[in-house]
Amino acid sequence: MLLLHLSDVDEANWAEKFRAALGAYPVVRRGDDFDPADVRYIFVWKPKADAFDGLTGLEAILSLGAGVDALLKHPNLPDAPVVRFVDSDLSQRMSDYVVAHVTMHHRLYTRFRADQKARRWNQIYPPAASETTVGIMGMGVLGQDAAKRLVPLGFDLRSWSRTPKAIDGVEGFAGAESFDAFLAGTDILVNLLPLTPETTGILNSATFAKLRRDRLDGGPVIINAARGGHQREADIVAALADGTLGAASLDVFETEPLPADSPLWAIENCYVTPHIAAISNEATGVRYFTKIIEDHKAGKPLINVVDRDRGY
Amino acid sequence: MLLLHLSDVDEANWAEKFRAALGAYPVVRRGDDFDPADVRYIFVWKPKADAFDGLTGLEAILSLGAGVDALLKHPNLPDAPVVRFVDSDLSQRMSDYVVAHVTMHHRLYTRFRADQKARRWNQIYPPAASETTVGIMGMGVLGQDAAKRLVPLGFDLRSWSRTPKAIDGVEGFAGAESFDAFLAGTDILVNLLPLTPETTGILNSATFAKLRRDRLDGGPVIINAARGGHQREADIVAALADGTLGAASLDVFETEPLPADSPLWAIENCYVTPHIAAISNEATGVRYFTKIIEDHKAGKPLINVVDRDRGY
Repeated sequence: MLLLHLSDVDEANWAEKFRAALGAYPVVRRGDDFDPADVRYIFVWKPKADAFDGLTGLEAILSLGAGVDALLKHPNLPDAPVVRFVDSDLSQRMSDYVVAHVTMHHRLYTRFRADQKARRWNQIYPPAASETTVGIMGMGVLGQDAAKRLVPLGFDLRSWSRTPKAIDGVEGFAGAESFDAFLAGTDILVNLLPLTPETTGILNSATFAKLRRDRLDGGPVIINAARGGHQREADIVAALADGTLGAASLDVFETEPLPADSPLWAIENCYVTPHIAAISNEATGVRYFTKIIEDHKAGKPLINVVDRDRGY
Repeated sequence: MLLLHLSDVDEANWAEKFRAALGAYPVVRRGDDFDPADVRYIFVWKPKADAFDGLTGLEAILSLGAGVDALLKHPNLPDAPVVRFVDSDLSQRMSDYVVAHVTMHHRLYTRFRADQKARRWNQIYPPAASETTVGIMGMGVLGQDAAKRLVPLGFDLRSWSRTPKAIDGVEGFAGAESFDAFLAGTDILVNLLPLTPETTGILNSATFAKLRRDRLDGGPVIINAARGGHQREADIVAALADGTLGAASLDVFETEPLPADSPLWAIENCYVTPHIAAISNEATGVRYFTKIIEDHKAGKPLINVVDRDRGY
């Protein structure tokens, strides 16, 4: 039996799609009449405190989110394996966001928009993509997809990850000891890291101060499409004010929705979007988890299982 | 002998670079002491009316600009072959501009910026790149380079050109009779056409009304990185006001610099840049034309010669 436990999304619709995909296999929702001991799989998004109560026969926890940092902090999370949603459609949308914001900053959008408002014809020529280095933090599925799309645009690419990753056209840096060298050659910093104790608050004043300053008109840029927990918003406000950063694109925030009194809303060179860089696609999700369940029932091993020590 | 005749750019610097590259071959500028009959090659940018006077031994006219529409209208243009600057570096920069503006509009930049100003957390999810069709007008070197960079981003691509062009991943339309069909499936229209009598004013109300309306939030978008003569600015102002167009990115204008009283400056969803999409790179230019001259002196045929009937 598959139990759905989804908050803030259309659970009834997911249930209908899973029933169509799984055929005779039973699919239930909270409030339905079923015996919790019969639940083998639970599909979760923002699970409540009692989500896992009585699930004594649970074999796997299926996470709608690609990021599982919040789920792993659930006080009553059972010991069953957690399967992450690795979604190629989500990677595409995330890369769409990353490429749009990288190229916008590379083309000095903030500068030209200010000139436009002032009716000023001021011919500044942005550097070629090949003269600009984009540094991607996090080389999982999302980081690799973003790199794959930025390389053909001609950008100079570098990556930073926990363990070394060899990607064509990308200079790889790995581990804490290489972080400063990675930052020193980066003009546009893109964060696609998982949120773990090690990466919490990594977008802070000390990090910003180590970015390359002499290449991009206006100063280095940060783009955060991962988690609000990665950023220190007070540090971003200060860095945009004193010129340590030339601009920032933020899709995620320490508190979401971003509170109406946050100073970020009103900063001209801070580009706020409401956590819309990428959303998990329903059709893709049903297809992905149906295959996970059917393979597992057939005795095959689970894929994309979260390493709880590592945190993703 | 090579004569330089460059307005509005640093002619002395070009002369120095050409002298270094061409060795013993004489390089002169206007005002230098030389016999016009000795000039075999003239390198021009915005030539004055008397630019070609007395050049009785001219063998080729070398154009710094990739677009030769203005040069071909020169009242005293000699009969010698005109060689265009086909510059891979310029293609890169032009594609940088095109990709930045395509992706910005695809990601609903105008919408999110308005929400930010209003401190409004409004989760609209842009379509994936694969659900969005970019239509490129003009499939010369610039159009092909832009297509080559947009295809890996996942966009659905189509092109429109005078003669059919087969490009991987791009649905080709050719000729006047297929123009409407091309527009009917286009969400974001990119103009990279040469300016000829046939293409003058092609970005007009009738064209805008034929674009696809139901895909991109806010309406279809135009991006003009070619020539101001391609666009009817009064039509753009009207189309942005009545919603026929969702947004426009314009790097070129009917009159440049764009006059301070142009309404385009103040339109929120019109993105004005001061003809900076791409500039010809000096080092690349000297290398390119030095090879043209040396090959021609060695008896090889000229390359990238303009077809004056066709206009490019």
